[in-house]
Amino acid sequence: SRELLVLTYGALVAQLCKDYEKDEDVNTCLDRMGYGIGVRLIDDFLARSAVKKCHSYSETADVIAQVAFKMYLGVTPSVSCSSAAGNEFSLILDKNPLVDFVEELPAERASLCYCNLLCGVIRGALEMVHLAAEVTFLQDRLKGDAVTEIGITFLRKAEDRKHKRN
Amino acid sequence: SRELLVLTYGALVAQLCKDYEKDEDVNTCLDRMGYGIGVRLIDDFLARSAVKKCHSYSETADVIAQVAFKMYLGVTPSVSCSSAAGNEFSLILDKNPLVDFVEELPAERASLCYCNLLCGVIRGALEMVHLAAEVTFLQDRLKGDAVTEIGITFLRKAEDRKHKRN
Repeated sequence: SRELLVLTYGALVAQLCKDYEKDEDVNTCLDRMGYGIGVRLIDDFLARSAVKKCHSYSETADVIAQVAFKMYLGVTPSVSCSSAAGNEFSLILDKNPLVDFVEELPAERASLCYCNLLCGVIRGALEMVHLAAEVTFLQDRLKGDAVTEIGITFLRKAEDRKHKRN
Repeated sequence: SRELLVLTYGALVAQLCKDYEKDEDVNTCLDRMGYGIGVRLIDDFLARSAVKKCHSYSETADVIAQVAFKMYLGVTPSVSCSSAAGNEFSLILDKNPLVDFVEELPAERASLCYCNLLCGVIRGALEMVHLAAEVTFLQDRLKGDAVTEIGITFLRKAEDRKHKRN
């Protein structure tokens, strides 16, 4: 059903572009919708993947790339850690199935993050397993970049912060 | 990726409900979007299903139910012919995966055809193989009916009409 997903997603983005003049507002809306989806999708993911608790941010990033992306989008991004602190990761997609039917962004939509829903989905799903993260597109082939790159920055846990203050 | 599709579709319907006050306008919009999807999805369907040309409306209805629904939604509706003329069919779904996460329609959305996109998809796809059809929901479990029923009425071909006039 991936083609139906891709085309339905396209219809969603097109509708939001009708609704909002500013690309930033469309991006925000897609991220917010994605968050709501991630919050619900995590149960399905945990049930079907039978993934166990991860013991490091690195393991979590690998599971997102190798299990979740594979399961829902049929692709496996490569993962690289991009900070010495070990809490920033990049998922690099050579091929992004969500844009299969998109030739290029129209000139007046140059700031649109077409796939921004994915960032929200990841953020929402992570939050449900008690991991706070910022998730954003760092590169996008639709914008002329060589690859599509999603950046995930795991934020220090609330408990850690509390512990530090004491 | 079916769960992601179902949740993304839910986000689309929710957005349209924000955009349009009247259920009828949401229904029309979903049908129109579905039409655009069907027009594009047919190539994917023909390529992957390797279905050959159908020789009757009845065969076409069976292919929609047994091949297309199975491929894209993972369910197989039962098919019944509902007219002596042999051009009206019902697809009957005991289970509709597109509403997996929908409990019930809110009271103020009693006329919403939640899955109306599907009607448009079928109509658009059929048109690309030169079959004109009207496709509508006849029953909907979301509205308290015992099953979900999609009615397909194949319209006499333009050529037939022309032939008759001569």
